[in-house]
Amino acid sequence: MTNLLNKKNMVLFLEEVFPQVNGKIQILKLFKDSASVKLMPNESDLRPGGTISGPSMFFLADVAFYIVVLASVGKEPLAVTTNCSINFMRKPNSIDLVADARILKAGRKLIVGDVMLKSDNGSMLVAHASFTYSVPSRLKV
Amino acid sequence: MTNLLNKKNMVLFLEEVFPQVNGKIQILKLFKDSASVKLMPNESDLRPGGTISGPSMFFLADVAFYIVVLASVGKEPLAVTTNCSINFMRKPNSIDLVADARILKAGRKLIVGDVMLKSDNGSMLVAHASFTYSVPSRLKV
Amino acid sequence: MTNLLNKKNMVLFLEEVFPQVNGKIQILKLFKDSASVKLMPNESDLRPGGTISGPSMFFLADVAFYIVVLASVGKEPLAVTTNCSINFMRKPNSIDLVADARILKAGRKLIVGDVMLKSDNGSMLVAHASFTYSVPSRLKV
Amino acid sequence: MTNLLNKKNMVLFLEEVFPQVNGKIQILKLFKDSASVKLMPNESDLRPGGTISGPSMFFLADVAFYIVVLASVGKEPLAVTTNCSINFMRKPNSIDLVADARILKAGRKLIVGDVMLKSDNGSMLVAHASFTYSVPSRLKV
Repeated sequence: MTNLLNKKNMVLFLEEVFPQVNGKIQILKLFKDSASVKLMPNESDLRPGGTISGPSMFFLADVAFYIVVLASVGKEPLAVTTNCSINFMRKPNSIDLVADARILKAGRKLIVGDVMLKSDNGSMLVAHASFTYSVPSRLKV
Repeated sequence: MTNLLNKKNMVLFLEEVFPQVNGKIQILKLFKDSASVKLMPNESDLRPGGTISGPSMFFLADVAFYIVVLASVGKEPLAVTTNCSINFMRKPNSIDLVADARILKAGRKLIVGDVMLKSDNGSMLVAHASFTYSVPSRLKV
Repeated sequence: MTNLLNKKNMVLFLEEVFPQVNGKIQILKLFKDSASVKLMPNESDLRPGGTISGPSMFFLADVAFYIVVLASVGKEPLAVTTNCSINFMRKPNSIDLVADARILKAGRKLIVGDVMLKSDNGSMLVAHASFTYSVPSRLKV
Repeated sequence: MTNLLNKKNMVLFLEEVFPQVNGKIQILKLFKDSASVKLMPNESDLRPGGTISGPSMFFLADVAFYIVVLASVGKEPLAVTTNCSINFMRKPNSIDLVADARILKAGRKLIVGDVMLKSDNGSMLVAHASFTYSVPSRLKV
């Protein structure tokens, strides 16, 4: 069985089930219940003034939490976001946005956690998001 | 003064302050406190299985609410999302995702409202988002 | 089987599973996927200035959504709130706070909907809440 | 000027502006940007099965965040909750629910932070809430 706690395996799996992620992110840290993921922004992520757009921040937060869900439950492409609440607090600079995602509860049906988005080498908190993911029931026969 | 309740003016202003929007959306309806906006998806919005990704749904909801905020307060590129809570309920099909955005309260500092994302010609509710936007204080001299 | 779409049956069931509700609310309307519920405030719900406290508004919204969940799925005391996002927009007056709750999606595991809190005879929107409830799996043998 | 970082002063101020708090809470820790607050539950907070109701958990989280807002900005009875998103994860036991509140951003207009609700002597995370408070503009003459 593929170990998704290996960064290369995780990236290969993501490229398969979520092709948009290709080349857009870099996994900095990867554990069973937390992960740090960096956005590799391109033109389509930037807003005038040298900052990153809100939807691109949401994208990074969602991908980072998806990664930690996969690290926690294993290959489960059908895990889906059911709820996200995100507070945008400051504008990030355009070059180093990192998401620190962690799981707060891994239930049978729902996985709950949060994500801190940081900029300026981790010194500036720019957004905070709470996520709930639903995982398909794993029937045992 | 440019009337942002005119769809062409709105699109021109968006292209200036939020270039990513170019060619990605179509404004179907535009009023002072509500708007309907359709996503024109490309490859980067799709997920395997013929559906639209969560971040692309967030993008559409956020842009639709930004449009109705601009329609309400006028040219204000500095209006920013401060909070969004979104519930994802069903998977949209890949071709006709429409956001119906409305303002529930237009305060001096904060504008609050919600967005329904619908697919299948409006017959299927796929997501519901609540937004708060902060508008810069408009000092009167 | 008891029909929970009957207001008296609903109140009797609530008194059993959620005793705090006793005497605190009045069900104005009750359908399978929507309900209107009025708060009967006492001293403990009021704030200085003649308004209703935030936690009392949350209480009313949560009870109203619980009622419509029960109306939808039947006697299910174990249905629990998993997420609520609430925007407080205006201060209600102290005498007529009404919650209009509706279901947006009734899934097998999760029920999603929203609640509008209104005051001044329904003319003033004071808060808007989104709820997700989890319902225990109903195994079929 | 009264120092609200003193627990007794804080309790006296709360009794004045939010009388419902009387006897319901105990401030365990109080700093300029964080606080720990314990619920002193009575009958009206309990649900059948020996747990604390959702609205009582919301009450504790909201009061704890209000306390840390007051500790941060000073006597400001008009600070109000504008948004709360709360995830309920586990059922607390009925005797020791504690809220750990912290500020993530103290802006001029909006204060953002989160609250962890814990039970079982702090070992069990039962809920996580994000709060935004609005503080009245402090005009400088």
